[in-house]
Amino acid sequence: MSYRIEKDTIGEVKVPADKLWAAQTERSRNNFKIGPQASMPLEIIYGFAYLKKAAAYTNAELGVLEVEKRDWIAKVCDEILEGQHDDQFPLVIWQTGSGTQSNMNVNEVISNRIHQLQGHELGKGDKFVSPNDDVNKSQSSNDTFPTGMHIAAYKKIVEVTIPGVGQLRDQLQKKAETFKDVVKIGRTHFMDATPLTLGQEFSGYVSQLNHGLKALENTLPHLQELALGGTAVGTGLNTPEGYAEKVAHYIAEFTKLPFVTAENKFEALAAHDALVETHGALKQLAVSLNKIGNDIRMLSSGPRSGIGEITIPANEPGSSIMPGKVNPTQCEALTMVCAQVMGNDVAIGVGGMQGQFELNVFKPVMASNLLQSAQLIGDACVSFEENCAAGIEPNQERINELLRNSLMLVTALNTKIGYYKAAEIANTAHKNGTTLKEEAVKLGYTTEEEFDKWVRPEDMTNS
Amino acid sequence: MSYRIEKDTIGEVKVPADKLWAAQTERSRNNFKIGPQASMPLEIIYGFAYLKKAAAYTNAELGVLEVEKRDWIAKVCDEILEGQHDDQFPLVIWQTGSGTQSNMNVNEVISNRIHQLQGHELGKGDKFVSPNDDVNKSQSSNDTFPTGMHIAAYKKIVEVTIPGVGQLRDQLQKKAETFKDVVKIGRTHFMDATPLTLGQEFSGYVSQLNHGLKALENTLPHLQELALGGTAVGTGLNTPEGYAEKVAHYIAEFTKLPFVTAENKFEALAAHDALVETHGALKQLAVSLNKIGNDIRMLSSGPRSGIGEITIPANEPGSSIMPGKVNPTQCEALTMVCAQVMGNDVAIGVGGMQGQFELNVFKPVMASNLLQSAQLIGDACVSFEENCAAGIEPNQERINELLRNSLMLVTALNTKIGYYKAAEIANTAHKNGTTLKEEAVKLGYTTEEEFDKWVRPEDMTNS
Amino acid sequence: MSYRIEKDTIGEVKVPADKLWAAQTERSRNNFKIGPQASMPLEIIYGFAYLKKAAAYTNAELGVLEVEKRDWIAKVCDEILEGQHDDQFPLVIWQTGSGTQSNMNVNEVISNRIHQLQGHELGKGDKFVSPNDDVNKSQSSNDTFPTGMHIAAYKKIVEVTIPGVGQLRDQLQKKAETFKDVVKIGRTHFMDATPLTLGQEFSGYVSQLNHGLKALENTLPHLQELALGGTAVGTGLNTPEGYAEKVAHYIAEFTKLPFVTAENKFEALAAHDALVETHGALKQLAVSLNKIGNDIRMLSSGPRSGIGEITIPANEPGSSIMPGKVNPTQCEALTMVCAQVMGNDVAIGVGGMQGQFELNVFKPVMASNLLQSAQLIGDACVSFEENCAAGIEPNQERINELLRNSLMLVTALNTKIGYYKAAEIANTAHKNGTTLKEEAVKLGYTTEEEFDKWVRPEDMTNS
Amino acid sequence: MSYRIEKDTIGEVKVPADKLWAAQTERSRNNFKIGPQASMPLEIIYGFAYLKKAAAYTNAELGVLEVEKRDWIAKVCDEILEGQHDDQFPLVIWQTGSGTQSNMNVNEVISNRIHQLQGHELGKGDKFVSPNDDVNKSQSSNDTFPTGMHIAAYKKIVEVTIPGVGQLRDQLQKKAETFKDVVKIGRTHFMDATPLTLGQEFSGYVSQLNHGLKALENTLPHLQELALGGTAVGTGLNTPEGYAEKVAHYIAEFTKLPFVTAENKFEALAAHDALVETHGALKQLAVSLNKIGNDIRMLSSGPRSGIGEITIPANEPGSSIMPGKVNPTQCEALTMVCAQVMGNDVAIGVGGMQGQFELNVFKPVMASNLLQSAQLIGDACVSFEENCAAGIEPNQERINELLRNSLMLVTALNTKIGYYKAAEIANTAHKNGTTLKEEAVKLGYTTEEEFDKWVRPEDMTNS
Repeated sequence: MSYRIEKDTIGEVKVPADKLWAAQTERSRNNFKIGPQASMPLEIIYGFAYLKKAAAYTNAELGVLEVEKRDWIAKVCDEILEGQHDDQFPLVIWQTGSGTQSNMNVNEVISNRIHQLQGHELGKGDKFVSPNDDVNKSQSSNDTFPTGMHIAAYKKIVEVTIPGVGQLRDQLQKKAETFKDVVKIGRTHFMDATPLTLGQEFSGYVSQLNHGLKALENTLPHLQELALGGTAVGTGLNTPEGYAEKVAHYIAEFTKLPFVTAENKFEALAAHDALVETHGALKQLAVSLNKIGNDIRMLSSGPRSGIGEITIPANEPGSSIMPGKVNPTQCEALTMVCAQVMGNDVAIGVGGMQGQFELNVFKPVMASNLLQSAQLIGDACVSFEENCAAGIEPNQERINELLRNSLMLVTALNTKIGYYKAAEIANTAHKNGTTLKEEAVKLGYTTEEEFDKWVRPEDMTNS
Repeated sequence: MSYRIEKDTIGEVKVPADKLWAAQTERSRNNFKIGPQASMPLEIIYGFAYLKKAAAYTNAELGVLEVEKRDWIAKVCDEILEGQHDDQFPLVIWQTGSGTQSNMNVNEVISNRIHQLQGHELGKGDKFVSPNDDVNKSQSSNDTFPTGMHIAAYKKIVEVTIPGVGQLRDQLQKKAETFKDVVKIGRTHFMDATPLTLGQEFSGYVSQLNHGLKALENTLPHLQELALGGTAVGTGLNTPEGYAEKVAHYIAEFTKLPFVTAENKFEALAAHDALVETHGALKQLAVSLNKIGNDIRMLSSGPRSGIGEITIPANEPGSSIMPGKVNPTQCEALTMVCAQVMGNDVAIGVGGMQGQFELNVFKPVMASNLLQSAQLIGDACVSFEENCAAGIEPNQERINELLRNSLMLVTALNTKIGYYKAAEIANTAHKNGTTLKEEAVKLGYTTEEEFDKWVRPEDMTNS
Repeated sequence: MSYRIEKDTIGEVKVPADKLWAAQTERSRNNFKIGPQASMPLEIIYGFAYLKKAAAYTNAELGVLEVEKRDWIAKVCDEILEGQHDDQFPLVIWQTGSGTQSNMNVNEVISNRIHQLQGHELGKGDKFVSPNDDVNKSQSSNDTFPTGMHIAAYKKIVEVTIPGVGQLRDQLQKKAETFKDVVKIGRTHFMDATPLTLGQEFSGYVSQLNHGLKALENTLPHLQELALGGTAVGTGLNTPEGYAEKVAHYIAEFTKLPFVTAENKFEALAAHDALVETHGALKQLAVSLNKIGNDIRMLSSGPRSGIGEITIPANEPGSSIMPGKVNPTQCEALTMVCAQVMGNDVAIGVGGMQGQFELNVFKPVMASNLLQSAQLIGDACVSFEENCAAGIEPNQERINELLRNSLMLVTALNTKIGYYKAAEIANTAHKNGTTLKEEAVKLGYTTEEEFDKWVRPEDMTNS
Repeated sequence: MSYRIEKDTIGEVKVPADKLWAAQTERSRNNFKIGPQASMPLEIIYGFAYLKKAAAYTNAELGVLEVEKRDWIAKVCDEILEGQHDDQFPLVIWQTGSGTQSNMNVNEVISNRIHQLQGHELGKGDKFVSPNDDVNKSQSSNDTFPTGMHIAAYKKIVEVTIPGVGQLRDQLQKKAETFKDVVKIGRTHFMDATPLTLGQEFSGYVSQLNHGLKALENTLPHLQELALGGTAVGTGLNTPEGYAEKVAHYIAEFTKLPFVTAENKFEALAAHDALVETHGALKQLAVSLNKIGNDIRMLSSGPRSGIGEITIPANEPGSSIMPGKVNPTQCEALTMVCAQVMGNDVAIGVGGMQGQFELNVFKPVMASNLLQSAQLIGDACVSFEENCAAGIEPNQERINELLRNSLMLVTALNTKIGYYKAAEIANTAHKNGTTLKEEAVKLGYTTEEEFDKWVRPEDMTNS
């Protein structure tokens, strides 16, 4: 491989000749060989592209950057956002905890790409646009990285997570309506209980997801707050008057998302409670989705020796050894995602609680975990909706069979003959393997007619 | 000890003669010897007392309970709420996961206490008010326990947590104002950075707590939803028309808190995402408080070999072996609480994700963890505020000494001479152990006058 | 209430006249009103009693404490260990993170109790045995608290956890043998699979618990290491030559447990990885027990609309509204304990990771979480064994019915006719609701005789 | 893109013409679009390659597979292990929870690659080696995936984690020896305490890592156990006599690692406590490393306004805005890794606790989290060792300055004049800003000579 020489304040570094990055990126590549290359999420790089462009516009408007430099910077930011330079960001999550090196990676790529676009050879000649003095003007890693991660996180939540969960919620809502008259046995403690409709059962899932989406949306205002303008420690040193508000405005304009400048920049650098808050809602969704996925798995179990009240699509051969087996694979993918999100929540919390003085240096690990959870939940909901939920059908025969046999229908008699006599009927029928009606009549607690009138599963499903 | 005989649908049980509970409570005592006795939080028992009274009023109003029974039930509920029967609830958290046995404990105590108040001997004669048919009328454990735990949790949050955190927030706000002109060195990556004021530093803490309180308040609407009226599986079987809304109304009236009936009772029994949601916000507060407590600990470290920029009250001898030692003990108590809350969050999530079909059977463990976190955060904030935060004072001499020496003041020169020359000044001063001014002048980058005009810490604290 | 005056190096404090504690305990009571009183586990106080006695013996033997003082100290330590002074330790977990105040609580109680035993009035006259100079001689909170918590934790593990888990393991082993010929359908992905015996199923639980016990025992050597002798920072300042080894020897003698002095005292004060390690094994047991409890819950589900392959004892009425209901309540208590242990693991980890320099100040929260987990797992296993596992019986009729119907018996044909033809048989039988044999013959893949010879569930349970 | 048609028991599927995978892999690609492609760790694929080859050898030896087929299978497995087919495994973690689809991916690639090597066109003609009947012979996904993940995990632990941690431990041990005479102030509660040597401080880190490595090694026997031979539910259905032991033997031979067949196959399929156990030890290491990383960060803080007792290498410019800044970036990468591992531990535990009946279907999420942690810890230790620990130097001037000023040297007087008088000296010196000696003499508690003889920091560092 051929190399060129790049310099920074520490000295010279050999950089692969064909790469746009410069000295500081290369130092980081060499100093942080931890896990697979380029693990820093591209979404964060794109967040940087938005903010670098916004900063250039703001700096120009406030008279501290030439318009020509602004335009060059903006041009390269647009290239980055179009995905033209995805292979120019080789750094890992496990670098400096402020993400300084990824900030410099972006600064360097923009500066060198401009150099290249202007017809110069990389590593030769002075750069028209300096990575530190121009691209990074009125900025610090300490306010850019949190800004980049808020942009990335917010976009992911509104573009992937919320639509994905919403798509599943809508499908479950449709099923709840379709199944509203399918009376079936209820189960509490995993044991037979009084009846409800399959639609009611599904309505609970819908309500969980609605509450979860609400909770997630509640966290967005905190995530909308951008640190940019705080620079090194939150004071905004080296920024022109009015910079923070204006740069947030440009970011909002470029992303078409309602970002605002953070009211308190000291918090915005030193703590990332906004990520903790948003991920708390993602964790809540994981808790809900695990319940739903698990229920569907169990309701569809069988085909002959399980619960079997619903059928789900058979998308693939289920077993490499057991012929003809169909498995609830979408439920499994979904609940595995939930386990991951539960873990990510702890990683984010542990990072969040360890900020010190003016800076939290767990930014990359917090951001990458949040982005993963947001993506996985959104994707898994869509996958589950399309490949499982949409195809759920009641197994009416099985449902009726289980309902008819249930001893818990006796509960309808509580208000007629009292809890204790009702219990006696159920216990006797259980012991004798008989029906409730047989025993109710034999014990003299109801007539056949009364029993038939009082114990009607379909009447037991709404109060 | 002397005993009497009590009965339930399974058979006879010997119960301590002087206790108000009956057969089912005693069975639970014997069958669940797990951890210390009576670990079920009293707050939940009080929640039950509110709801049993509300149910009696509702049942009477809807014509399914005699007014006389209502009044007896209400009378004993009031006694319970006054704390007269705290020793009658011996059950543990680690019982049936629906809390059925605690529901029956309350039913039994109310029924027997009425029997006693009516002048009868416990265990002798028929009870005027039946534990199942009267006290538990129109109810199931499955809707009462979640109702009791929502009442308990909501009360704890609004009576202990929010005021406690608010008290600390107010004190920190006061300090932020008082310290607004105390210019000090900033620290990022735990390393010397550009200056800010001590007031600005504290304002970050205030902002964290404000965001945390906001997040906590966002969760309250979900917690306000009460399951009561769902009975066994959410359908409301065996409840009279209009019961759910009315009973929530009575609970709101009796507790003076804005409870409403849950829109979807199936969710309200089968999932406790409301607890997950609220505790998510408590966890966020723990993350914030850990940062704050840790910062205060480090800012006050010393007295001679640490940071020492602030002093905190010396409330107790710090060491049993090192004479004269003062320790940041309130910070330690606070951050230990934060560690506990981080753990509780996982316990609640793990319980929340494992609901099955119509019931989640991790109710007691979820509720007790939430109540503990809510209490500890509230108490710890008050303790920290009164015994530490209120007494924080800047150590002006130390602050000035550290500020004057700082190499990071060089950052003010970026916009005058560029990042690279500024770096050269700082690096040279660091290597030679000299001052920035000396090196700036020696390197010919500024005159003395320029340096003095450009590098003024007090000008560097607002943009 | 009447008070007396006690003094420490900071000044005078009013203490309840009838209490044995003195100034520092009282300061802590007032300064740390966080959560319920006296939450510091008594097991740790007892750990202190052992070590104070051992220190007195060692100090006397090494010539730095009078024998008379030694005997007085030992006498009171024995009283504490007999439980005579349980109400003299009112402090909370949420105090200084080194547990200094609980160390002083013990020192003060011992000193004052000697004063009392010598016939003096509390608060009057000089104390024959000084809390700091005698009871605490050759000690610091920094080495006594970790010693006390290791003693407490080790005792709890070997006296409660291991026997409790062992009792359950033995019962499951017995069941595994009893059920060794009960052939039943297997389930993978919660779906019907090839058969195994109920005994084999239970043998998996036994193997889990055996591995868990092994893992727990592997952690004991780290827990056996005692910090005592490190004093303030690990150097052993102010201890006589040979003290550390000897005091560990005395503790081993008094507790009859194999404690040794920690090889490295700096670790023993600054990190509590031993607790992290031991709790890691407790968490593993929780993971195992959750699986077992959940399986038993599902295997016993029904009675008519679930899996129903086993029956478990009906220990109490299951429902306050559904008469005759029996619930797997022991499974629920057990799995709630598992959820708690999962949370405690995080609390301990979060505490463990935040030690700073020569001291970890999350000792009380780490120790109390470990003690809770160890107690709960031990108790819950015993409760589950006695009230559930011992009474498990196969429901032979149901087992046979489910086995006969299973389509997955077709797997036995793989090695005869190949996976693809076998799959065709199973799929056809599933579609037509027929038996495997019917379709195998109809498709011409086997004769009736071949089918009967090849597809024998009892032959499919061992390779 | 051009396609060919492949078939499975469900029907036909279009597969990219140039890919070796077949129908089931393609179905999984389409059905599980969750997160980035090919997230299933290659290490697990390699684990499969070992076990497929071992199974072929065993099957041949036991007479159920032709030697020619064995040799073809082995040949392709070797190709896979050489990394020739890395791009043929496109599946994600978030598939079926048994990993069936990755098992089939391997089966299909091997079968098709043989077809190709034999000179046939993909998708045309019968395959000499069938994916199900030959490559998967005597296997099930249910026993191959756990075998593959144990192989992958074990290799990663012994090849990356243990050497990485060991390298850091050795370096810290070297530093501990080099610094054994550097007397410095100790710090407890982050406050000045009695002295120790820098070498002693580092010896605590060494001891932590030694205990952690021991704990990790303790978990290896469980991880050595392989599920292979259990097939579908643990009974070993469709395996020839002696298969399980022999196949484990071949795996041990091919990997040169001490694998054995699991004693209980039912556990080995239904529970993955071995992963929980091993990751528990990784979490313990994370707890230790977080403490170490944090200490180094704080000890090196400054350069002028922090602790500054050690210097660490300046590997890169620390700040994009603050010129000349050096940051503890390796500490930050390391502690971020620790946060991730804390989270992964919960993800693994949550997956591990949810096994049901004969199968745990959280295998991929558990395995991938463990592999990530094992890699990150190993890599981060190496990175930290090479780029930080190796370059740590004491800042002797600063160390001396802080030591000389310390008030906690007074502790040496405890055994001479008692704790209370010593405290008085320290308190007075603190109040007056004077030295201990001045006040000791002024108060008349020691002479100058006594003070100089008794209070010698270097004598205070060993008992």
